[in-house]
Amino acid sequence: MTLPPKGGVDNLSRKPPSRRQDADIASASRTFTLGRMTPQPNPEVGAAVKAADRAHVFHSWSAQELIDPLAVAGAEGSYFWDYDGNRYLDFTSGLVYTNIGYQHPKVVAAIQEQAARMTTFAPAFAIEARSEAARLIAERTPGDLDKIFFTNGGADAVEHAVRMARLHTGRPKVLSAYRSYHGGTQQAVNITGDPRRWPSDSATAGVVHFWAPYLYRSRFYAETEEQECARALEHLETTIAFEGPSTIAAIILETIPGTAGIMVPPPGYLAGVREICDKYGIVFVLDEVMAGFGRTGEWFAADLFGVVPDLMTFAKGVNSGYVPLGGVAISGAIAETFGKRAYPGGLTYSGHPLACAAAVATINVMAEEGVVENAARLGASVVEPALRELAERHPSVGEVRGVGMFWALDLVKNRETREPLVPYNAAGEANAPMAAFGAAAKKHGIWPFVNMNRTHVVPPCNVSEAELKEGLAALDAALSVADEYTE
Amino acid sequence: MTLPPKGGVDNLSRKPPSRRQDADIASASRTFTLGRMTPQPNPEVGAAVKAADRAHVFHSWSAQELIDPLAVAGAEGSYFWDYDGNRYLDFTSGLVYTNIGYQHPKVVAAIQEQAARMTTFAPAFAIEARSEAARLIAERTPGDLDKIFFTNGGADAVEHAVRMARLHTGRPKVLSAYRSYHGGTQQAVNITGDPRRWPSDSATAGVVHFWAPYLYRSRFYAETEEQECARALEHLETTIAFEGPSTIAAIILETIPGTAGIMVPPPGYLAGVREICDKYGIVFVLDEVMAGFGRTGEWFAADLFGVVPDLMTFAKGVNSGYVPLGGVAISGAIAETFGKRAYPGGLTYSGHPLACAAAVATINVMAEEGVVENAARLGASVVEPALRELAERHPSVGEVRGVGMFWALDLVKNRETREPLVPYNAAGEANAPMAAFGAAAKKHGIWPFVNMNRTHVVPPCNVSEAELKEGLAALDAALSVADEYTE
Repeated sequence: MTLPPKGGVDNLSRKPPSRRQDADIASASRTFTLGRMTPQPNPEVGAAVKAADRAHVFHSWSAQELIDPLAVAGAEGSYFWDYDGNRYLDFTSGLVYTNIGYQHPKVVAAIQEQAARMTTFAPAFAIEARSEAARLIAERTPGDLDKIFFTNGGADAVEHAVRMARLHTGRPKVLSAYRSYHGGTQQAVNITGDPRRWPSDSATAGVVHFWAPYLYRSRFYAETEEQECARALEHLETTIAFEGPSTIAAIILETIPGTAGIMVPPPGYLAGVREICDKYGIVFVLDEVMAGFGRTGEWFAADLFGVVPDLMTFAKGVNSGYVPLGGVAISGAIAETFGKRAYPGGLTYSGHPLACAAAVATINVMAEEGVVENAARLGASVVEPALRELAERHPSVGEVRGVGMFWALDLVKNRETREPLVPYNAAGEANAPMAAFGAAAKKHGIWPFVNMNRTHVVPPCNVSEAELKEGLAALDAALSVADEYTE
Repeated sequence: MTLPPKGGVDNLSRKPPSRRQDADIASASRTFTLGRMTPQPNPEVGAAVKAADRAHVFHSWSAQELIDPLAVAGAEGSYFWDYDGNRYLDFTSGLVYTNIGYQHPKVVAAIQEQAARMTTFAPAFAIEARSEAARLIAERTPGDLDKIFFTNGGADAVEHAVRMARLHTGRPKVLSAYRSYHGGTQQAVNITGDPRRWPSDSATAGVVHFWAPYLYRSRFYAETEEQECARALEHLETTIAFEGPSTIAAIILETIPGTAGIMVPPPGYLAGVREICDKYGIVFVLDEVMAGFGRTGEWFAADLFGVVPDLMTFAKGVNSGYVPLGGVAISGAIAETFGKRAYPGGLTYSGHPLACAAAVATINVMAEEGVVENAARLGASVVEPALRELAERHPSVGEVRGVGMFWALDLVKNRETREPLVPYNAAGEANAPMAAFGAAAKKHGIWPFVNMNRTHVVPPCNVSEAELKEGLAALDAALSVADEYTE
């Protein structure tokens, strides 16, 4: 297979600073331009890539014969393109992980430099990139979450957080929320509260699901945020009483649930869960695999609520997924549990030097270029008002919710009844309205995040105002298609 | 933290071909020299790396306050060095994964090139490096294991293999062997048959352990390999009868158990397990995370035995661990199960482009430089005779076993009784003999692989004859220390 011509990192880094004139912080401080943004069609290579994929690649979460993966030729900043010359504005950040966009030259250069020095080394040693990544993360995590256990991704971070909680408390059960996703391995997917759990469901996994607050579709017949919050906390505490506080090791929550729908918890809810955990000696785990590292306009979503968990999982944004990396940030008390007693868990690539070097560079880029601030500022000044305006004009939009660069549109058949535009976990014909919406979005040049009856607006956190406006215009057009399915 | 001076990849690649005069294939075909092999002491940087490690890095499988991780400054080929100027010949290949040694310049260059082109992209797309890695792996896997599901490492590969087997068969149980290791996540560690399982043991994980053949410490009172093989197969089939064949989804075995002791199965055993699986409709999973990609002197250990499993897991050697990567190679029949029905599993970094590009380069290097052949040849011509000679002279050596670059010395107190030099899972004072052995090995310049009462000889598969002789001399000296603890 022949590689198509490419510029290489030198071409990127030697270019003058941004030629674009956007006024926002992130664009102004970007040191690179989108030099290869005019995709050159190369359908022959694309066909070869596609053919080898279809012959040999087994894809995640898919019926292998029913998928038709797009062959992607290149990506830069907020865009990617295929081999036929079509370019897309990525409103998904991959799977909500390229928080600094694609191919940031400083992080690319850091990966290249670390590769030249020491690409890998076993976990039992002290390694500069590993030490430095742990230090930079610990400086940013809330409270005393100062020890970092590195994993390869989010799922194994959750696996290990749960193990730490069980051994720290000596208790077996884990409480987690319906409408959540915590990873694809067996323990993590059983903790998950969406249909991806069903085929692997193990009634014996020691997991109990409860309902978290979600006023728009309240399980508590609430009419205000205050009521929803109070009733959700009462529901949780009652569940704990009936499960037995002495049996519960951990409560795990996505600080703001991600793929499940970006339900920003009402004021007081997470602080209330923190209090309940303290009252019963339960470990409080916040999963920030998707919400962490700038996504919400804070380094961690927990900072939005002033809450400090006992364990916090991360992955994705920690290095924008440039090299696989995840981890658990651990409180002093739990680290102490494993001070003189061995922690019974580990992995070959824990603290992988190349992955850690990418994290160091990404965190430094985010700090130097104001990426977190950009997400907060453009989220509030551009995305929120635009989405609220779209909601006024499009009857298919039931609710707009989110913060920073983390937004959901809850699409409905009928605003009065709030009936979702497609049924829960719909597939095939039943999912036609959302499929039509997605196709329209692509036709208008954005790659949309679509899950059940929702679309999420989750571009890179260093997206520019101009890119946002381009994407929101495409979303406007696609929502007109969704409107056709309303009653 | 200041980076110490370094040569960069250009310095490496511009040097003339090997200045060493070893006659073996791998050395002769190496296109790089060990240009930075004279470590420059830099204790100040080392102290800073160590301090940040101790403050912020939570290490695998360890009591955090009882460890003293060596700060490693650099690594190249078969060697690494610390910040005090001490150099070690790595007889562990990291955790038995750097099959092409450290910093192979062709793979470093491939990582740098892929980083410049496309460091990451989401799994639902067809990506050149992903397609090419899948194709190169599928070309080498035995039988019709032609579809590749990529994971981040070995543990999640096992998690997904088990899920595939359960859904393919509709049965719940998994049979695995005592004396095995299959990974650190909850399902994988429950499948594991060593003490790392105990703290996370879930009687509900659907796993049943059985005994695999190991003549030196036979569970079957056998006196010959033939007897051990026949009785181990009878034991397995009886276990299946009493567990209920219709309840068993999979039998999973490391083709040659790794950390558990490199017990090469007797002729006919794996073929016998294959027959039993066929008889009862059980999925046969071979775990080649450690044994695969050249370690045994074949691309896969299954090739040594002419056996084709239904699923085969891999990681480590697939790209020498330069970027985290693992996966499952899937048979036609099991891929067909997920043809029109979605496979309910996946992960953000499945088929990560940077990891896949490192796999493509590693596989090509192994093919071009005869790395697999080197492991076979030097294993047979240098390692095996040397270890057998050591066993004659050192009373602490109970048994020598292995193949390729995959060897174990089973150390004993007494050759007659075969009592292990230290008790099973010994720690602290009880483990003093093995600790003394390990310290002596390091004093003589090798970093040894030590597990319970064993040391494994598992250098990179492209190790040179001269390096092997250097390491075997150090092992000789360290065994003299072990001898002091024999009766």
